[in-house]
Formats: sequence, C-alpha cells, structure tokens
Amino acid sequence: MTRPDYMALALAAAERAAAAGEVPIGAVLVDGATGDVLATAHNRTETDADPTAHAELLAIRAAAAARGEPRLVDCDLYVTLEPCPMCAQAISFARIRRVYYGAADPKGGGVAHGPRIFEQKTCHHRPEVYPGIGEERAGALLRAFFAARR
Amino acid sequence: MTRPDYMALALAAAERAAAAGEVPIGAVLVDGATGDVLATAHNRTETDADPTAHAELLAIRAAAAARGEPRLVDCDLYVTLEPCPMCAQAISFARIRRVYYGAADPKGGGVAHGPRIFEQKTCHHRPEVYPGIGEERAGALLRAFFAARR
Repeated sequence: MTRPDYMALALAAAERAAAAGEVPIGAVLVDGATGDVLATAHNRTETDADPTAHAELLAIRAAAAARGEPRLVDCDLYVTLEPCPMCAQAISFARIRRVYYGAADPKGGGVAHGPRIFEQKTCHHRPEVYPGIGEERAGALLRAFFAARR
Repeated sequence: MTRPDYMALALAAAERAAAAGEVPIGAVLVDGATGDVLATAHNRTETDADPTAHAELLAIRAAAAARGEPRLVDCDLYVTLEPCPMCAQAISFARIRRVYYGAADPKGGGVAHGPRIFEQKTCHHRPEVYPGIGEERAGALLRAFFAARR
C-alpha cells in the first residue's frame, strides 16, 4: 500500500468514530519494514469512559501489545488530526519513526502548536513529521461533526 | 486519611513497581468529596508492553472506568514523581482538581519542567499543583533503582 491508502484507512476509522458519536479522529499504525497494518483505532473517550482513549494512544497500545514490546521501532503512524500533547509524548516514548497527519489543530495540537512536544529539549526521541496528508477530508469530517452538535 | 497517607500509598505502589523491575513510580487517585481511593497504580510499561502504562495514566483510566465517565471532576492525584508531558495532558483532559507530587523530574517532567503543560495557552483545564510531597522517599526509591541497574 502507498501512504495515501494508509491515511484512507485512518479516515475510514474517523468516520466510524463519528457514527459512534465520538469526535471523528482515526489512526493507523504501520510496520515500516513490512508495510503491515499493526493497529487501527478511533477516538473512544466517551464509549470507554476513558479520557486517554484518543485514536493515537489506542493504536499505540494495541500495536505494542501485538508486538509484545513497549517500543515501536521502525513503525509509522497515520492520524487524521495533529496529535495532542499527550499523544505526541506517547509517540515519542514509543519511538515511532514517522508521523503522517491530516488537519492541523491550532487549539489542541501538540506537534506544530501549543507545547510543540518534539521540539522540547527534554524530548528524547523525535519522529519525522509529515503534516497535511488527507487534511481536506479530515477537516471536513470534524467540521461536520461539530456543526451537527451545535 | 490525610494527604501524607495518600502519598504513602503511592510510595508503597512505587515500591511494588521496583520489585517488579519497573521504574518505581506510584500514583493514587482520590475522590476529593468522599476521600475514597478510586485507583492505585504503578508503572507497568515493561510488564504490559505498553509505552503509555505510566502510573498516572493507569490510575486515571482505572478511576474513570470505575466512575463510568471520562472526567474525574473533584478528584485529586497523588504521584511520587513529577508527571511527564503525556500524563500532565491526561490529567488536564480528566479535569483532575489537584495534583500532589513527590520528586521533581528536570529530565522528563512536564509540569515544572520541559513543556510545562499546565502553563500552555492551549491547556483548557489546569489543576492546582502541590510539589515536593514525600519527595525524599520518592527520590531515594528512584536513585536506588537506577543505581542497581548501572
């Protein structure tokens, strides 16, 4: 699969989140060596009553469990929205190689906004970051979700 | 129970972490209205093969599951070490009222060091923070753990 296809899987996960009444954000974790999808997840904070159940954190936890190790060396994350500071720090802890994300998040993002986690001196692993992949559809999903709730 | 007793529970959890070969950090989540302990946890990143399995995140997830809601309004967290940026952001998402912590963590902390998560403009909930509670024992536990590994 090529990169846009992985993001299409993440966008499909985001659509499932919206259908479940969750903020529509999806994530896919890929083994960079084999191209295998290790985990796909969407936001489940309300469903699971878990404030940490963001798409990225769930994907990281599932992929690490599947591999049986807490570090996801040579793995790449595709996520429809810029990760928040919590997820960005988890990405660093997991030693993820590359992060591809869709829409920017000036209000809640932690990569290109807010604390810019990967630019901190105390951040010991910095992934390569590729923003703006599939951002149009990711942003449209989020706008439609919040417009319907107002 | 008074505050030092909750931190004693967190320190006992940190000791259990060390006995399990995990970095000795413990956390206790308390219902501020009733004084009930909602969750006690210690670091389990290696045991669970989960890079997000920090004491604070595990305590937050367990307490939220027990309450059946993703926000822990009026709850207080006692943790033996200054929370990292991931855990600090999770504390904010969970709407935790007060954070009491032991030792400062200049290298990995995210409250008084690094990104200082609660001081970010994009941080929408800031708990009250009380550092230095039981820090001597918390720091001694960590130093003994890392000294034995060298």
